[in-house]
Formats: sequence, C-alpha cells, structure tokens
Amino acid sequence: MGINFVPKEEKFFDYLNMQAENLLKAASFFKTAVKDGVLDEGEVRKMSDLEHEGDTLGHEITDMLNRTFITPIDREDIYTLSNGLDNVLDLLNAMAGRISLYKINPADEYFAQLVDLIDQSAAALAGAVKHMPDTKRQRRVLDYCIEVNRLENLGDSVREKAIGHLFETEKDPMAVIKWKEIYETAEGALDNCEHVAKLIESILVKHG
Amino acid sequence: MGINFVPKEEKFFDYLNMQAENLLKAASFFKTAVKDGVLDEGEVRKMSDLEHEGDTLGHEITDMLNRTFITPIDREDIYTLSNGLDNVLDLLNAMAGRISLYKINPADEYFAQLVDLIDQSAAALAGAVKHMPDTKRQRRVLDYCIEVNRLENLGDSVREKAIGHLFETEKDPMAVIKWKEIYETAEGALDNCEHVAKLIESILVKHG
Amino acid sequence: MGINFVPKEEKFFDYLNMQAENLLKAASFFKTAVKDGVLDEGEVRKMSDLEHEGDTLGHEITDMLNRTFITPIDREDIYTLSNGLDNVLDLLNAMAGRISLYKINPADEYFAQLVDLIDQSAAALAGAVKHMPDTKRQRRVLDYCIEVNRLENLGDSVREKAIGHLFETEKDPMAVIKWKEIYETAEGALDNCEHVAKLIESILVKHG
Repeated sequence: MGINFVPKEEKFFDYLNMQAENLLKAASFFKTAVKDGVLDEGEVRKMSDLEHEGDTLGHEITDMLNRTFITPIDREDIYTLSNGLDNVLDLLNAMAGRISLYKINPADEYFAQLVDLIDQSAAALAGAVKHMPDTKRQRRVLDYCIEVNRLENLGDSVREKAIGHLFETEKDPMAVIKWKEIYETAEGALDNCEHVAKLIESILVKHG
Repeated sequence: MGINFVPKEEKFFDYLNMQAENLLKAASFFKTAVKDGVLDEGEVRKMSDLEHEGDTLGHEITDMLNRTFITPIDREDIYTLSNGLDNVLDLLNAMAGRISLYKINPADEYFAQLVDLIDQSAAALAGAVKHMPDTKRQRRVLDYCIEVNRLENLGDSVREKAIGHLFETEKDPMAVIKWKEIYETAEGALDNCEHVAKLIESILVKHG
Repeated sequence: MGINFVPKEEKFFDYLNMQAENLLKAASFFKTAVKDGVLDEGEVRKMSDLEHEGDTLGHEITDMLNRTFITPIDREDIYTLSNGLDNVLDLLNAMAGRISLYKINPADEYFAQLVDLIDQSAAALAGAVKHMPDTKRQRRVLDYCIEVNRLENLGDSVREKAIGHLFETEKDPMAVIKWKEIYETAEGALDNCEHVAKLIESILVKHG
C-alpha cells in the first residue's frame, strides 16, 4: 500500500491503543455475559480468547521494542504500561474462570456494580492511552486518570458493602470463601486499572 | 513573609516528610484506638480523614512534579516514594474499616503486637525520610531502613503465631476468615513499609 | 591470591548467579522434602536457612552497589532483580512454614505438580541469569524467560483444578481455607518467577 510515512515510533501507541481497546472489549463483554446469571462455556472461552489476544499484542510490543532503537517514551515505560493493561485483563479472565469453577450464579447486585465500574474504568484507560501521543491533550489524559482513581474509590466502597452483606446473610462458609474471593478479584481489577492510571500519570510527570 | 530563599527542590522533601509524619500520626492513633477493644465510629472516621489527608499530600506532590523542572532525586522516585507511603496508610485505613464492618473486638494480643510494629515501622520511615536530604546522614537513613526490615521480620513471626493460635482455638470458620484477613492486612502494612524502605535504599544506591 | 584481573562489574553477575542457584537449591530440596507426606522440623529449618542465605547474598549485592561506581546494567535493575529472586524464595519458605503450622500432609497430587513447576521455573531462571552477561546469548536468555512464562500458565491451570477439586471433595471449611492458601502461595511463587523473567526481558529490551 505504498510507503508508510508515519514515523515508526508512533506504532507503539497504536499497539498500546489496540491493547486498551481489547481490554475494554473484554470488560464490556463480561458485563453483559454475567447479567443473565449464567456464564456459559462459550462465554468463558470468549474471555479466555480475548485474554490471549491481549497476550499476543503484548508480545508484539515486546518484539517491537527489541527491534526499535528510538521510542517515543522510555522503553521500560511502554513495557510496563503494556504489562499493566495485561494484568487487568488477566484478572477479568480469572473472574470468569472462578465463576465457572465455583459454579455460582453471578447475578449479584454488588458484583454487577463492580463489573460496571471495571467497564467504565477500562473505557477511561482506553481514552487516556488514545490521547497520550497528543502533546496538546495532556490535561485530558490526566482527567481520564483521575476518573480511574474515582472509580477505584467507588469500587472500594461497593466491595466493603458487598462483604458486609455477605457475612450478614450467607451462613455457608464455603459460599463466603467463594464470593469473598470474587469480590476481591473484582476490586483487584479496579486496583490494577488505578496502577495503570498512576503509571500514565508518572509518564506525564517525567515528560512534564 | 518575605522572599523564600530555600531552593524550590527542597520542597519535595518537605512534602514527603509531611506525608511520612501523617502516616506516623495515623499509626499511633490506630494503636491507641484499638487498645480498649472498641473502634467506635468517630475513630473509624478519624482514620479515614487521615487517609484523605495523605491522599491530598500525594496529589500536591504530583502537581508539584508537573510544575517543576529540576528535582533533587529522579521525578519517578519521588512519585513512587509518595505512593508507597500512601499504600501503607491505605492498609491501616482498610484495617479500621474491616474491624468496623466485621464488628469484631480488636483487643487481641497478637493484633496489638502487629499494630505496635506498624507504629514503630512508621516512626522509622519518618526518620529515614526526614534525613534523606542530608547527604552526610546517609548511614543513618540506611539504619532506619534496616530497622524497618527487622520489624517486618518480627511481624512475619507474630502473624505466624497469630494464625496458628487462631486455627487451634477458633471453631467458627467465619471468625477464622475475618481474623485471618485482619492479621494478613497488618502484615501487609509491614510489608509495604519494607517496600518503602527498599525504595529508599535503592534511591541511595542510585545516588551512591 | 594475586591481583584480580576480572573487571569489577562482572562480580554482580556472579552474585546474582549465586542467588539464582541458591533459589534453585531451595526449590529442589523442597520438592523432595514434601514428597513423603511429612515436612519435619529439620526440613523446615533447612528451608529457613536457605532463605537466610538468599537474604545475605541480597545484602552483599546492595553493599556492592553502594561501593561501586560503574555497573554493567542499571544499578536499580540489579537491585530489583536481586529482590525478585528473593521474593520467590520467601514464598517457598512461607509455604514450608504454613505446612508445618497447619500440620497438614503435603503429599497432595496437585501440590506436587505445583512444586515441580516451581523447581523447573527456578532452573529456567538460573539459566537466564547465568547467560545474561554473555551478549551473544541473548536469544537463549529470552528462551529461558519464555519457558518461565509457559510454566506459570501451566501453574495457573493446575491451581484451578486443585481448587475446584478442593471445593468438591473437602467438607471441612478450615481445611479448605488452609489448602486454598497453600495452592495460592505456590501459584504466587510461580507468578513471582514470571515477574523476574519479565524484568530480565525488560533489561534486555533496554539494552536491545
């Protein structure tokens, strides 16, 4: 398709962008999938496929880093950012695996709230990553990061209520162990979104 | 108050110092608050207020980093140090929240020991941060860091005993789940103190 | 013993190598020790001794970093690598401590698989660290890192099966709590091996 005049280094942002979009796709899919109270085999596999897609994008970024001399931001920051996005998707996929393994009905009010927060958080991260290369939009990138922090704080308080409710109403210790882990994994996904946001902030700080 | 002749970059240490002092304040307050076996609503709120104070200091440091060209140590190290202190305070506040949520009596011998170690560790961190800018006191800073490591090792062994005792004496699985989490969060706070100490060591190493 | 002509900076790799070999020694010892279904006091102490040996090597590396001006790779990367190897050994030692504390029979099929994966992973890390200084063997180093990632993925799926089986067959919540923690700590050790592998990859990336 002719010579590519786009400077090579911009490709890194393209790939980070694809990774963030893939994460958002997985979060939105998961949110819809758990709504009906059943996470069927096909849905679990779909989550696993999206996770592999994320892994592949991550490996492509690493390979590109190994072949490229000049990078738009520090090589290790690109690497850590890519890994951070990957960690969130890993936790989403782990949640799908646990729901299926524990054979539990995921139609739970608190869980739905947490999954919705993860979806919003993934959307904010995708927005932040998308605008990172645009040096005139740094304020907007920062706003997305602040939004991720806000969502993580909300998630903390939802998890708090969820676990309080769990101990008050659930008499079976096995069910408590299972749901506690699922709530905590959801909050862990939000935590990891916040780590990525903080990393993006620190990259802006470094180039500020 | 006249012109400020203190070079701008020293302000970073002032703010890190305020953050470390705020953490120490929270640790000491918590230690006293749990002693009587009740963590009342006002005490939980006070912990939450101190946590917000820590957050605000952290944000001020990030803003300062965004406005300042020259920093005394690497920008990302200031940022990571500030975040590390914040993580310890988050865990202290999480412990307060859990004790309140689980409606448990915090007057437990092992828990008191762990909370005391956190208080000592916060004091050592405050000492380390305070002396960081004084290039003649690097040995002292290192000694504080070693002290934090020592306290973390002690904490490991207290938590070990606590959990052993818990499984031997507590017959209610719900209570085991709750206390196990609280002991582990306390040990997690000590772990995070150690991370901060290791970060300070690594900053000294880099400038060594 | 005469003048040492080996350039000073190569010593860092010698020490990292010793640390990786010490980790492998501990992993292999642990694998053998748990096989007979009893982890006796002497074996627990041996694990603790190997962990202390690792700590000592880590401190020697930090001291060397404090005394050395020129390092073969970034000072903080040497430091983080040494810490990462230490974290894996800490978790191995923690597992030994828990098995002893919980008085459980470690002769469990899933646990044996996880411990075997840790042993293989430690061997791959030792291989990667050993070849790091040889600039002509970077491809081999990368292959070892990919192997560590592969083993971690296997570990994820073993832990998944282990926990599924646990909830299906074990009726005592206390035993579930104990074994769940042990399986998760084993998987945590594999995760930490992967962190070290990713760190090594990122060092290659930086110097690529």
